[in-house]
Amino acid sequence: MKKVSIKDVAKEAGVSPTTVSYILNNNKNVSITPETRARVLAASDKLKYVPSQAAKTLGSSRVMGRTQSKMIGVVIPQTEDSVDDAYIMLSNPFYSTFLSAVEYEMRRANYHVLVTGTNRGQSYIEVVKSRALDGVIIIGIYPSEDVDEYRRFNIPTVLVDCYGSSGGDFVSIRTDDRLGGYMAAKHLLEMGHRRIAFVSGEIKADGVNYMRFQGYRDALAEYGLDFDSELVFGGYVGFSYGAEAAAAIAAANKSGGRRITAAFATSDITAIGLIKGLSESGLRVPEDISVIGFDDIDYAGMCVPGLTTIRQNIIEKGHEAARLMIDALNGKSSAGEKIIPMQLVERASVKRLTENAEVV
Amino acid sequence: MKKVSIKDVAKEAGVSPTTVSYILNNNKNVSITPETRARVLAASDKLKYVPSQAAKTLGSSRVMGRTQSKMIGVVIPQTEDSVDDAYIMLSNPFYSTFLSAVEYEMRRANYHVLVTGTNRGQSYIEVVKSRALDGVIIIGIYPSEDVDEYRRFNIPTVLVDCYGSSGGDFVSIRTDDRLGGYMAAKHLLEMGHRRIAFVSGEIKADGVNYMRFQGYRDALAEYGLDFDSELVFGGYVGFSYGAEAAAAIAAANKSGGRRITAAFATSDITAIGLIKGLSESGLRVPEDISVIGFDDIDYAGMCVPGLTTIRQNIIEKGHEAARLMIDALNGKSSAGEKIIPMQLVERASVKRLTENAEVV
Repeated sequence: MKKVSIKDVAKEAGVSPTTVSYILNNNKNVSITPETRARVLAASDKLKYVPSQAAKTLGSSRVMGRTQSKMIGVVIPQTEDSVDDAYIMLSNPFYSTFLSAVEYEMRRANYHVLVTGTNRGQSYIEVVKSRALDGVIIIGIYPSEDVDEYRRFNIPTVLVDCYGSSGGDFVSIRTDDRLGGYMAAKHLLEMGHRRIAFVSGEIKADGVNYMRFQGYRDALAEYGLDFDSELVFGGYVGFSYGAEAAAAIAAANKSGGRRITAAFATSDITAIGLIKGLSESGLRVPEDISVIGFDDIDYAGMCVPGLTTIRQNIIEKGHEAARLMIDALNGKSSAGEKIIPMQLVERASVKRLTENAEVV
Repeated sequence: MKKVSIKDVAKEAGVSPTTVSYILNNNKNVSITPETRARVLAASDKLKYVPSQAAKTLGSSRVMGRTQSKMIGVVIPQTEDSVDDAYIMLSNPFYSTFLSAVEYEMRRANYHVLVTGTNRGQSYIEVVKSRALDGVIIIGIYPSEDVDEYRRFNIPTVLVDCYGSSGGDFVSIRTDDRLGGYMAAKHLLEMGHRRIAFVSGEIKADGVNYMRFQGYRDALAEYGLDFDSELVFGGYVGFSYGAEAAAAIAAANKSGGRRITAAFATSDITAIGLIKGLSESGLRVPEDISVIGFDDIDYAGMCVPGLTTIRQNIIEKGHEAARLMIDALNGKSSAGEKIIPMQLVERASVKRLTENAEVV
């Protein structure tokens, strides 16, 4: 099959290849009559001409001195020591929903999305450079040399759920995780619970789990309660860890002492593991123990009982990350932090604790 | 930051840029001493040289007369009329697990993965051409002109869950869906069920749902039963449709007549919707109605009760699809159909029907 070239289109339309190039690349610096434009587009359609992005990358399509690949990267780092860390999205459906939303919005703007995990020790920068990516969306990275290297590399970068790395010309998008942690714990307190387990991924300075932990403590303090380190379970984000924590909670409740009546899991996928683990220990949710999650992944509304959770609109977060990226690609500066609102979604995994039940 | 060039590496190693290029591109036609190779690789490491894939694409890296982008595409078509059809992966976690497995295996072989949905009416071929993709993995496409166009275009293509499109130099990977449908229905029959609903996506010739439907009929026939069209629910693959079908089943059971005691949903995500919908209609699984799914997505083991299902190893399917792609990229022909085995996974969503319960 002979590849249709720009020359073929030029010949069909009766204009020069340069004119075709101006029109197809939407070059605003050149004045073209509407008739010529229409003739060239018709010729291009008729011949089914497809411009090669690879050729464009090394060609003349430059914006602000940078070649354009019309492709961005979404980097999903494996920062947690989960068993599935070689896989980019298995451990948490949050990622696939977010990625789908980014891809949808970028596709509408005629960009493609390269999705990549990274092998341990590999710099994301290598991928960005080797692919001549126009920009990169990075989820959940901790402040590190990598971010500094990105900054030096100076390509449009949107950070998602990152603390302490924004500023400069970086755009950051996240929820107010401390507030979210507060909302979750506050709801359990309002429902009469006092012994509330905190189940999360690694609690590391400047990470989202650390922020949610601060919010949990804020709510406890408001009720005159100090946090009890025995109620804090910090492992990794994932179903398996939720199930592990459930076994520990069930064991603690059997060993006597004041019963743990509720748990706040800082991600829904962990909450779902917790519920499964509790069920395997013979404990029912919410009859024996209440559980609240965080994220509102699809599955939160699908499971029985439905999971009460702190909702962040993941699809909107993906759309917004893509829109911030598109703005940055177009040279519109919107540096700073964009905060996505949250809301409490009450389903069926939390029940009000009666006075009697609390004292065991 | 000055970009390190191949000339810098050559200078550092004391060799010509051409020699560096031969070594870094692993050119087997040129004889290089081990000492020179080691010196060049050390220089490349020291200077943190990163070859530009974009440059390579238009450069001399050609295999079988084709330029290499070291990038493959995974195309997730929106062939079902689901509400989420603008999003590539939202409707079914099968896709994200599969994609993660493909990305993992391709990454190990130094390929990147471009993930794309397509807008309605847009040809996937355009993406392949414009990105100079080395190959493409296509999931669940129906036989169509698109596939014929792929064939003409003659790039390494792995078809996943496709019927009637293989042959020639195409590689196809799938399960034996007719056998899988038979296994699911047979299990319910063995557990004493006779009125078994069939809940699936659109039942379309040469689609996986059609094949699973044939298997369901095979099992019924083995028990001397004909299929009852009132028990066949063919909508779309997804949670929402499962919930819709549940409402219809609950209504049918209330209207009198012989009670539907079990359902086979041809995907787990539909089965989970079915269970949720039944719960909302006041029916418990498995006490009031048994449910079996298909796929064994992660949620199948996470939900309470655990979902009994026909397992296909999705991660292995992704790995195998990637390996077939890598073989094809390396010119190793393995054209034909690769069949992934299935197995029945018994959890808690199917119960044995006693004689009394069946007759209502």
